[in-house]
Amino acid sequence: MTNNAYQQRTEELIAVGKYLDEHGWVPATSGNLSARLDEASIAITVSGCHKGHLTADDIMLVDHQGASLDGKKPSAETLLHTSLYARYPGLGSVLHSHSPAAVLASRLFDDAVILEDYELLKALHGIITHESTVVLPIFDNDQDIARLADEVAGYLSANDEEQTSCYGYIIHSHGLYTWGESVEEALRHIEALEFMLNIENRLHGVKHS
Amino acid sequence: MTNNAYQQRTEELIAVGKYLDEHGWVPATSGNLSARLDEASIAITVSGCHKGHLTADDIMLVDHQGASLDGKKPSAETLLHTSLYARYPGLGSVLHSHSPAAVLASRLFDDAVILEDYELLKALHGIITHESTVVLPIFDNDQDIARLADEVAGYLSANDEEQTSCYGYIIHSHGLYTWGESVEEALRHIEALEFMLNIENRLHGVKHS
Amino acid sequence: MTNNAYQQRTEELIAVGKYLDEHGWVPATSGNLSARLDEASIAITVSGCHKGHLTADDIMLVDHQGASLDGKKPSAETLLHTSLYARYPGLGSVLHSHSPAAVLASRLFDDAVILEDYELLKALHGIITHESTVVLPIFDNDQDIARLADEVAGYLSANDEEQTSCYGYIIHSHGLYTWGESVEEALRHIEALEFMLNIENRLHGVKHS
Amino acid sequence: MTNNAYQQRTEELIAVGKYLDEHGWVPATSGNLSARLDEASIAITVSGCHKGHLTADDIMLVDHQGASLDGKKPSAETLLHTSLYARYPGLGSVLHSHSPAAVLASRLFDDAVILEDYELLKALHGIITHESTVVLPIFDNDQDIARLADEVAGYLSANDEEQTSCYGYIIHSHGLYTWGESVEEALRHIEALEFMLNIENRLHGVKHS
Repeated sequence: MTNNAYQQRTEELIAVGKYLDEHGWVPATSGNLSARLDEASIAITVSGCHKGHLTADDIMLVDHQGASLDGKKPSAETLLHTSLYARYPGLGSVLHSHSPAAVLASRLFDDAVILEDYELLKALHGIITHESTVVLPIFDNDQDIARLADEVAGYLSANDEEQTSCYGYIIHSHGLYTWGESVEEALRHIEALEFMLNIENRLHGVKHS
Repeated sequence: MTNNAYQQRTEELIAVGKYLDEHGWVPATSGNLSARLDEASIAITVSGCHKGHLTADDIMLVDHQGASLDGKKPSAETLLHTSLYARYPGLGSVLHSHSPAAVLASRLFDDAVILEDYELLKALHGIITHESTVVLPIFDNDQDIARLADEVAGYLSANDEEQTSCYGYIIHSHGLYTWGESVEEALRHIEALEFMLNIENRLHGVKHS
Repeated sequence: MTNNAYQQRTEELIAVGKYLDEHGWVPATSGNLSARLDEASIAITVSGCHKGHLTADDIMLVDHQGASLDGKKPSAETLLHTSLYARYPGLGSVLHSHSPAAVLASRLFDDAVILEDYELLKALHGIITHESTVVLPIFDNDQDIARLADEVAGYLSANDEEQTSCYGYIIHSHGLYTWGESVEEALRHIEALEFMLNIENRLHGVKHS
Repeated sequence: MTNNAYQQRTEELIAVGKYLDEHGWVPATSGNLSARLDEASIAITVSGCHKGHLTADDIMLVDHQGASLDGKKPSAETLLHTSLYARYPGLGSVLHSHSPAAVLASRLFDDAVILEDYELLKALHGIITHESTVVLPIFDNDQDIARLADEVAGYLSANDEEQTSCYGYIIHSHGLYTWGESVEEALRHIEALEFMLNIENRLHGVKHS
């Protein structure tokens, strides 16, 4: 890792936080943002800061087990990030938003939100036609993050043949996790998933064509 | 109280007003914002100004009985602020927003809005798990502010064992009162409560999981 | 009329147009904004311009019959403004927004929208308690503006005992007209009426407390 | 074509992209924007860029068959633009937004959205009264753009007596195409159509006046 790469990822995460806040997707101090630097380290937002007003001080370095490399205090949810980097070698970024659409969807739908027919599915890594199906599973919320990470891992192992099969998951009344090869791609996934979640929420209970 | 503290609280309240206005939570001249300075004085917005365009002239000093200390005219609702400071020694700020979500909730729900299961409950002072219950009582609106303050006081005395049991209340067709140890914390409470009120309003009348 | 007053009203109308556009209340070239200068002249937006990007050139002078005083072309709806100034001697401004809330309300409600119990009613000129009732009548849209002005005049004559009894009206699928003693007051009326219309639309068809 | 005209259209398309993005109408890399330069060339956004952050590099030149004139890679949907320019000699711009309102409408309504009684219909080219009817047909989405262009052409040939009869169409779960004599007019059409689509979506399933 060069200092240069760390600085660049930091700037990208700061910009993502500002974007998410402008859309109301990281209220109060919710949300977590990270980017892989190399085999030894990950840049991730520290515990308890507002994602809409991040400074370089609010980004820290952890190793791939989630231990702090620079003395700052990592968020409890860091494990949800590191376990995804461990699973997907090509992964460059994990973004967790806490949006109204994701929280509402978790209360309207049971086990998953099924996304079909949307042209915007093509904004997701590797998808080339709207005739695709993407499943966003909904997990129960849990303050025991290790247990929650295990549940996510179990689901992904059972359902995820390759990196492009699963694009994200929802935690009940808590928000959305998504990821991508780069911060830019992960943010594109958020934009697309948020759009489709809003439509699905709006259609809930409506008899439609 | 140093002039410095007064200046700092004034700047914080001006920034909060701008933030609330950008979200549509203080339409026309609605809303009131205050911060405790010391045992002798409270900084609070004057009567009749637009909270989105506050200047230092729109902030005034009152004593803990709500009497003007600088000749400016306090809002009729000042008593709702001073009575909260009197009740909670650790309180640093009281914020009253007049948001669509709070007004709508007061018309959709009867006596209270019950917030449960939200991860965002953890944004409220002292809450450490989503497995908590927060009750936002709804009081009838009343132009007799002393009578309204009494009703609020009666409810809080009966239900509020310590500062962290009650986080706010709604006045019917009028808006939300919330508070915190600092202006920053009170604003974080507004962000969290507004988010959850929007979800509860959306779920009203919907059969959901 | 001094040039100074004309310049000041022009600046106010430009600012109002920008505000309305930022809220989505004057889509395309819809909306009309005016301010009374004196017994001889009224400043009003010209025909066909976008209200979000007004320049001084987009404001013109008409007399109290709506005839151009400066060679610019007045909007067809100018008569709806001049007839209000003729009716109410103390009137300083008439603002017509074309908002989603007003258009939706005109399709959800039959003859009028009734506003009751809102604390925000106190933002309307002369109202001092939420225990007031304000009626926003809904008129059929009509390309014959003289005929529409007559219908409005007939309603106001029958229902409006003094300036403060009627605060505005809705034209079906077309928008809201409101007014005030100054541009600032008329804008405060828009803010308050838009807020309440949004709540009423949301409550339409909902059984609520 | 002068370089000057190319530069001017480019600046207009960049501004339109920013406007659409600010409204959430071109999520991720969706949407396509074009302007006719002359009988030999059309300026159009390149494949795969975010329309909210366009630079001059993201605009390319194609001929009227959609072939690249400058070596850049055109979007797959370029054919939907060129076929409209071929059909309508007076056409100056085609804009494709990917808005929530258009996607939702395509899922709520069957074959078309019918717009009637709106004053805002007068924002559409040549319409002078709200007593008009505008039909926005809904076509199935298709990754075979030539086949989709044929379906659009068939519909327009059957229904479009002159340029002003059809103002746009919706592709299922994909978005809105509209057009105008200039970029400014096409954008005015988007503003008006988006407004009316939002109202129609809101009224879906509601018994109203």
